[in-house]
Amino acid sequence: MTEKLVLHEFAASGNCYKVRLTAALLGIPIERREYDILKGETRTPEFLEEVNPNGRIPVLQIGDRFIPESNAACYYLATGSELIPADRFDSADMLRWMFWEQYNHEPNIATLRFWIHEIGIDNLTEVQRALVPGKREGGNAALKLMEDHLSRHDWLVADRVSLADVCLFAYTHVAGDADFRLSDYPHVSKWIGRFQAQPNYLPISA
Amino acid sequence: MTEKLVLHEFAASGNCYKVRLTAALLGIPIERREYDILKGETRTPEFLEEVNPNGRIPVLQIGDRFIPESNAACYYLATGSELIPADRFDSADMLRWMFWEQYNHEPNIATLRFWIHEIGIDNLTEVQRALVPGKREGGNAALKLMEDHLSRHDWLVADRVSLADVCLFAYTHVAGDADFRLSDYPHVSKWIGRFQAQPNYLPISA
Repeated sequence: MTEKLVLHEFAASGNCYKVRLTAALLGIPIERREYDILKGETRTPEFLEEVNPNGRIPVLQIGDRFIPESNAACYYLATGSELIPADRFDSADMLRWMFWEQYNHEPNIATLRFWIHEIGIDNLTEVQRALVPGKREGGNAALKLMEDHLSRHDWLVADRVSLADVCLFAYTHVAGDADFRLSDYPHVSKWIGRFQAQPNYLPISA
Repeated sequence: MTEKLVLHEFAASGNCYKVRLTAALLGIPIERREYDILKGETRTPEFLEEVNPNGRIPVLQIGDRFIPESNAACYYLATGSELIPADRFDSADMLRWMFWEQYNHEPNIATLRFWIHEIGIDNLTEVQRALVPGKREGGNAALKLMEDHLSRHDWLVADRVSLADVCLFAYTHVAGDADFRLSDYPHVSKWIGRFQAQPNYLPISA
């Protein structure tokens, strides 16, 4: 890779961690640039114009071009590596877990983590507060679906580590921050342990 | 492709339409099996056990294996075709739009369309009703982001039709069903026209 890679991020975000973790597992050096999302630093005219018109992090900068969306940034980094299966079914199945993560897992578990861990439950709006029970239920349904799958498989796709595991590990292993009880999901907990034992594993706080 | 392809679907869903549309553009024959989601037909024990433990459609069946998640099913069908760019940046950029669709576009525009068009606004729960203004704002923000991009490009990625266009076309062109005014987005409207002029284009009602 000849072009310089810069990760535009808010380090505590699991979505940003996914990208750092993919880079670490593959031994790819990336520069990091931090933004305080609580102070609106990703909604400035400069950020919207130059980095991401959607006003969100992470964004992976490759030379003078930009890839927003965490799972797409991970995909860019992992292209051609063993983290993306070569088989046609398996690569689509990997993306299936990654789309599911963004639709059924992240909006429940990551959002509750952000609300509880960063915003504080007492500072939520009335509409946000009304959503908490549904997100609690949706997050537990997501963990249950992973639990059932991981009771029969060591990894999410094709019995080996792939980007599907990387992208789902990010928010699953910190689900406790959002008051989910991981001890209720023993196969998920064992998968977290297996993942943390991978060579070049990088913790979220690193 | 030697294995039989079956699309498990609810035909009015834009997510299911994406898969039919991808197959049509590529000239791939698929069988269709209809489920009435309003009657809970994707939440039966048989469906959860055999087709998709997440209880959702579409699911693409390939022989005796299954790919849930609309965008992953489209990716399976389009593997090796011109709908997926070969270039590393472009293929990640295509996935960027597809992840964005599932996170920022579909939960606003598709959900409002389902609530208005299938459920009826008077039949919403109190929590759903409280979410309508936020989804209206989010849907317009998504259309605005597309409008800005399409004011400078004919297609979303690499100046040619890709799965990003297919997946975003599905709910964008019927956004009027959810009371969005497409006439406010003239470049999006022209892109819709360009897309409908593609060879083998298939309407959602077909």
